[in-house]
Order: sequence, then structure tokens, then C-alpha cells
Amino acid sequence: MPFPDKTSDNVLDKVLIIGLGLIGGSLARSLKQSGHCREVVGHSYRDYSLKKGVELGVIDGYSLDLDEALAGVEVVVVATPVLIAQDTLRNIFTRVGPDTVVTDVASVKGSLLQAAREGCGGEVPPNLVLGHPIAGSERNGLDASSADLFVDHRVILTPTVETAPAALEKVRRMWLSTGARVQELAVAEHDAILAATSHLPHVLAYALVDALAHSEASQDIFNFAAGGFRDFTRIASSDPVMWRDIALGNREELLRAIDMFAAHLQRLRNAVDTGDGEAMHKIFTHAKATRDAFAAKKGSD
Amino acid sequence: MPFPDKTSDNVLDKVLIIGLGLIGGSLARSLKQSGHCREVVGHSYRDYSLKKGVELGVIDGYSLDLDEALAGVEVVVVATPVLIAQDTLRNIFTRVGPDTVVTDVASVKGSLLQAAREGCGGEVPPNLVLGHPIAGSERNGLDASSADLFVDHRVILTPTVETAPAALEKVRRMWLSTGARVQELAVAEHDAILAATSHLPHVLAYALVDALAHSEASQDIFNFAAGGFRDFTRIASSDPVMWRDIALGNREELLRAIDMFAAHLQRLRNAVDTGDGEAMHKIFTHAKATRDAFAAKKGSD
Repeated sequence: MPFPDKTSDNVLDKVLIIGLGLIGGSLARSLKQSGHCREVVGHSYRDYSLKKGVELGVIDGYSLDLDEALAGVEVVVVATPVLIAQDTLRNIFTRVGPDTVVTDVASVKGSLLQAAREGCGGEVPPNLVLGHPIAGSERNGLDASSADLFVDHRVILTPTVETAPAALEKVRRMWLSTGARVQELAVAEHDAILAATSHLPHVLAYALVDALAHSEASQDIFNFAAGGFRDFTRIASSDPVMWRDIALGNREELLRAIDMFAAHLQRLRNAVDTGDGEAMHKIFTHAKATRDAFAAKKGSD
Repeated sequence: MPFPDKTSDNVLDKVLIIGLGLIGGSLARSLKQSGHCREVVGHSYRDYSLKKGVELGVIDGYSLDLDEALAGVEVVVVATPVLIAQDTLRNIFTRVGPDTVVTDVASVKGSLLQAAREGCGGEVPPNLVLGHPIAGSERNGLDASSADLFVDHRVILTPTVETAPAALEKVRRMWLSTGARVQELAVAEHDAILAATSHLPHVLAYALVDALAHSEASQDIFNFAAGGFRDFTRIASSDPVMWRDIALGNREELLRAIDMFAAHLQRLRNAVDTGDGEAMHKIFTHAKATRDAFAAKKGSD
């Protein structure tokens, strides 16, 4: 039997994925492979990855026209960088009815909620379920996509009081079908937590590599850098457009996180400057204990 | 034949390793295993790891008395944290003659050169060859030591104009016997490069984990942190005493590196604050290109 029984609540009829990169491509692969969705189609502003997606069997078809792409779709997944996602959500909500569930995969939620509201005459649409799979890597694009990208990874959904329970359930089941663990957070909570654990570290890694690349001894520096440096800067190899958009899309929380970090760095700098070994030892010991506990919980170093 | 022919210039008669942790223990194991040294003995201010070292066959014997430990030794390797290494170098040079070669393994060189000079009545001792194997991990102690820790890793030696060529050659060959690649840098150059590539990233990782641990949402933050965060903060699991000592021992260069970083972070913060996507994109793109080139050269991501 090529497709699971459509009478089951678990199975989706037609899903549209907008943006066929690492996340969109991986979701398409997973939905096709598991049979959780009968038909997966794509849309983008250019056809390069879409053509490739059809050739590879990642999607069943595509349209470059948004109206055409949206026809008969049960769930729309916006999987573009954040700034395009904002525009796309505004456009979608002028086009779809309440029966089409709209979700996304971006690393920021507040500015997308705002964009959807703008597309909906100021109201939060009940068929909107913003979501964020915490998966990915510094590699990107359809070539890096994989049907098991989400297995055992978290997906955070951020429903609001306006969200229709049936819409939430549909998106929740879609992600469960990929092997992900689904959790819920408030929009503001999501954006604050992601600013701290993801957006800030990316900014720090970019700032460090940028600073070293501009230093006089740049060549020597990179010649003598070792394993710790490689791990520490890995995320500076991430996609610049994606991260520019995230920084712009989660501006307030990111600024707050940068300022909090800068204050702690300054405190540590003062300890170095005054030769206060005791203060340093206390900070390092506390940080190590926290990091060790985190690593132990995650079951890895 | 249990030991290589002592007539060969390559073979050392007796090496004393002071401090039997990850680096000291790994060097002892390697020298014993390769037969590059006939006898490896240990010294420390307490006997815990020394006893264990003898039991495990990592060293042939030890003494808690420095004078006794130094008797008949051809090469002394100071492998303690930096502050103890400073004291130890001062002490050693009041005790050894010009035929005993003295080296170390610390991540800072300027402050150790100064300490050795102090022990030598203000002169730089010709039998001093400061060295730094760029190997290690956030694990530490004799238990984590291994005879192949240095294979294909860099060891930087920092001879001065006063250094005796024969002393330099002895230390160089010792490290070559471990499978390391040996290079030379000036003391000041070493300290500036290591501040940028190693000491600064450690300080940033410690400061980040410290900042997050102090934030109100600390529990949620660590619950939702993912792979990028794990890599980025791995070095915050390093030994606090070792890193306190390095920060104190390379104070000037570390402060310079922190300030350089803070200026670049501020620049990036301003771009976020003013919504200057173009500036951000430029910084991220430049950083990614630099990081990608570094990773490609190192043959890993």
C-alpha cells in the first residue's frame, strides 16, 4: 500500500513547503518517506532547488506561483530565511481560508507572529501554528537535507490563545511523524531562550572570527589554531543570510543577550586586569560545573 | 633490546617530569613506549598521581624532594599549571648546572621566561628551552593521558638568543620522538597568537556559560540548548585552575585580545541595533569565508 489510509487523522493530504533548503528539504523527505503525507509540493521565488527536488523525488511537484502552489493544500510550511518568511506569511494570510494550517520553521517567532497578524488585518490567525525544529548545521541547502534530520531533535511550537486546537494538533502530529520530540513555549519565551542559546553564540563566533581575520597576525593565528578553536568557531561557518535575518528578526532579545554577555565579559576582564585569581577561579569553576551538568544531561561531551 | 643504544644522540638517559597530569603523563608514556628515554622519573608537591604513575608503569620512580628528583637528570620538563611552573622554574635554576636542560609545556611563555631569569640572577639561562605542545582537551589528569596525545600535533618551541643550540636540539628531538611536529616562534609572538586562538576563546566560553547560568531563565536555557551550543561551550568544561593560571600568566596579551574582541562585538551590536542588515551580512560573510578556509586547511569541519 503506497499511502497510509487517508481516513486516519494522522495522515495529511497535501503539504506545501515554501523554500526547499536544509530544513524544508529534510521535512519533505521525511513526510514522503514515512507516508505521513500523500502529496508534498514546493514553492519558491526561483526554481533551482524545486527542479532538483522533483528530480530527486523529494517533492511531487512545484509552482513558482504562490496562488497555484496553495491550491488544495492542507498544511503550508514556510521554510525560508526569516525576512522572506515575514513577507511570505503576510502574503499567505491574504490568500488562504481558515482550513489551511500555516506553520514555519524559523529560529525567531515574535516578528513572524507580527507579520502574520499584518496579513490578517491585525488579528492573530487561528490557523497559524508557528514552529521551530531545533536541528540543522552549518551546512545548508537541499544537498545537505536528510529524512532523519529531526529524529530525536526538539521541535518547539508556539501556539497563542487564538490558535485553533485542531490546527495545533495537525502540526504537532506532522512533526511527531518525523521522529522529533514536540514541546510548546510561549512566543516571547522562545525568542528569549533562543537568543541566549543560539543567536548570541552565533554572533560571538562571527565576531571572534571577524576580529581575528582583521588582526595583523591573522595568518599566524589561523595557522596555530587547534581543536578547541575549531569547535568554538564551527557555527561561524553558518549561512550569513540566514543569520542576518535571525539577528534582524529577533533584534530586541538578541541585543539584550549581547549586553548581558558583554557585562559578564567585562567582569571577567576586570578580574584579569587586576590579577584577581580568586574571582576568575570562581567564575571558571561555576561555568565548568554548569557546562559539565549540561553535557552529562545531553549524554555527550 | 629493551633500550635503544645510548650512544645515539637521539636517546636521553634520564628525564624528570614535574607534574604528572594529562600532558606530563602523556609525555612520560610516549618517552617510555618509544624508548627515547632510558629512565623517566616524576616529581610533584604531593604523591597521589606519582604513586599511580609508578603503578601504571608511566614513570620509573619519583621523589617528592626536588633536589633528589633532579639528581642525574638530563632533561627536566615542568608540566604543572602556570603559576606553579613559575615557582618551579625559579627553584630549579638555583639548583641545576648548565648541563641539565630545562623545558616546560605551558600555554604561556613570557611570564615563565621572566621566572627562569629571576631564578638565574637576572640572566636568561642558556639551558632553558621553553616549549608548548598544542594538544590537550577539556579532560585532564593522568587518567586521560595517552602515549599518542602528541602525534601530528604541533609543539612550539620559543628559544631566545641566549639558548644553547644543543639544548634546543635535545628538546626538539624529544618532541619529535612523540610524533609531534616541532616549530619555533618568538616568545612574544607565541603569547600573542595563543591569546587570540586559545586564551580568548576560553574566556568567551567561560563568560557565556557564566552569563547564562546567572540568567533568570537558566534552567530553560540549558534545556533547549542544542548541538551548536554544545560545541561552542565545550572548552568551558576545561580545568579552572589551569585557565586561571593562563589568564594570569598571559595577562597583557589576553587583555589586548579581549578588548579587540569587545570592539568587534560592539560593532556587530550596533549593526543589530540599527537594523543594518548590509553591515551584518558583510561581517558574517567575511567570517564564514575565513572559518571555511581554516577548516578546509585543517581537513575537517
